[in-house]
Amino acid sequence: MSTPFELLSAHACFGGEQRFYQHASTTIGLPMKFAVYLPPQAQQGPVPAVVYLAGLTCTEETFMVKAGAQRLAAELGLALIAPDTSPRGANVPGEADSWDFGVGAGFYLDATQAPWRTYWRMESYLLDELLPQVAAQLPIDGSRLGITGHSMGGHGALTLALRHPGRFQSLSAFAPICAPTQCPWGDKAFTGYLGPDRSTWIEHDATVLMQHQPVAPYPAGILIDQGLADKFLPDQLHPHLLEAACAAIGQSLTLRRHAGYDHGYYFVQSFMADHLQHHARQLMAPPSAGASAR
Amino acid sequence: MSTPFELLSAHACFGGEQRFYQHASTTIGLPMKFAVYLPPQAQQGPVPAVVYLAGLTCTEETFMVKAGAQRLAAELGLALIAPDTSPRGANVPGEADSWDFGVGAGFYLDATQAPWRTYWRMESYLLDELLPQVAAQLPIDGSRLGITGHSMGGHGALTLALRHPGRFQSLSAFAPICAPTQCPWGDKAFTGYLGPDRSTWIEHDATVLMQHQPVAPYPAGILIDQGLADKFLPDQLHPHLLEAACAAIGQSLTLRRHAGYDHGYYFVQSFMADHLQHHARQLMAPPSAGASAR
Repeated sequence: MSTPFELLSAHACFGGEQRFYQHASTTIGLPMKFAVYLPPQAQQGPVPAVVYLAGLTCTEETFMVKAGAQRLAAELGLALIAPDTSPRGANVPGEADSWDFGVGAGFYLDATQAPWRTYWRMESYLLDELLPQVAAQLPIDGSRLGITGHSMGGHGALTLALRHPGRFQSLSAFAPICAPTQCPWGDKAFTGYLGPDRSTWIEHDATVLMQHQPVAPYPAGILIDQGLADKFLPDQLHPHLLEAACAAIGQSLTLRRHAGYDHGYYFVQSFMADHLQHHARQLMAPPSAGASAR
Repeated sequence: MSTPFELLSAHACFGGEQRFYQHASTTIGLPMKFAVYLPPQAQQGPVPAVVYLAGLTCTEETFMVKAGAQRLAAELGLALIAPDTSPRGANVPGEADSWDFGVGAGFYLDATQAPWRTYWRMESYLLDELLPQVAAQLPIDGSRLGITGHSMGGHGALTLALRHPGRFQSLSAFAPICAPTQCPWGDKAFTGYLGPDRSTWIEHDATVLMQHQPVAPYPAGILIDQGLADKFLPDQLHPHLLEAACAAIGQSLTLRRHAGYDHGYYFVQSFMADHLQHHARQLMAPPSAGASAR
């Protein structure tokens, strides 16, 4: 269970409301912050939501400030949920020594190695605490959730969607880390959080997880956008490996490679509308044929 | 004259390009930074532009990160120009002691009082140096400029547009300081930059400037949005005074008061599309009747 959310601030935005919350997380054992955008339609009852997982060094605020998503979310009637990227305030030795490990770099998994395993439990926090509590405490329909994310958060979106069948009805990502067992960011994070046994790493690698799916888990397709001027593309992201894994199991994937675009939020915002529309198509029940004929 | 712009960074964004520049300003005597968004249409030749002046504590980056303006600017074929809010690096004693005076608080005027008058010359910098140089060095049509801004930047947009007839073809503002000679922010800034003689202050007060216009200077109308949950509305902004001044001289003003909206960028972004469309209507030459009939 979780304590009631504490509202830190609320801002009218496109007829809905941008809110920032804090709660005492029992999973993590520390206060955690998160952001929610509620579209105007949420005033009439629960709405579907898209969860956005941010990248290295980001916070619960990054997406809401930089991605320009609220405008279309208000039009589509989608809520937006943005958690933080790691525990904060744990005071684990070395937690802030690197920008790609520790604070701001939770990788959306549960650490198994001391000292991280005490607090760095982002997967359990999101699946078992934050999302159920958001559906319980806010006008959000927890049975209609999409998930997306950027970079490390794209890794999080892909792996959580594949590890928890049925929890998310739609999936997309921006410049995700597609094969973390084969890149420096993943090597560092998985060594620290999961230890040297690489057999545990593959449980958090989207490409390996996709290879092991018995059937295509997202029959309506997965959308991924990737900039070709992204400085992290050659060494860290490896979308071609996920592309091959999807092809091998028959998972429909729209992987768009965009000349000139880099890794930042000027890239993310450029394609945000396409992602929200992708999620809305799967999260919004279409009107029945009878209803639409009238 | 100005030295050539130094490109600090460029990011593909909605088919156009988000650029951050620095140049050695001869007007201010220091390096100045600014941001430009060039829409895709600028690849075919000069495009009209909207100048955005930011508020207290902001930089040339604030608008480009937080306002969600690039999407519609790309659709409309408008460039966006965002200068910084003050000189930086002058090392004037006390320049950083307050958040509402000195660094980040240039008020878009030329100071007449020592020590500020040496560097704090934002009006001359913008009108005589930055905007001409932007038109000379970038694919921007300097004869088709709109101006807008937020809070202190709304004051800047209104006063520069009224003080320099013909320089801007369209005008709008978000939660502007409308009567700085009658509010604490204006008292503090004008006392420091302009000295105790209040007869010099009224040259930089939008309400007084409007009262003294011989004819309505913006016959196509001025657009202002104001949130009613804005904590600065009661003491600092006074839109009703500008509203009365516009009515007295027959200046068309659309002043929209929005219940629930505060002073921040979740408010600004909510109404950005309306402002860019307001500017585009006046900056884009309509096709001739003959052309449109074909």
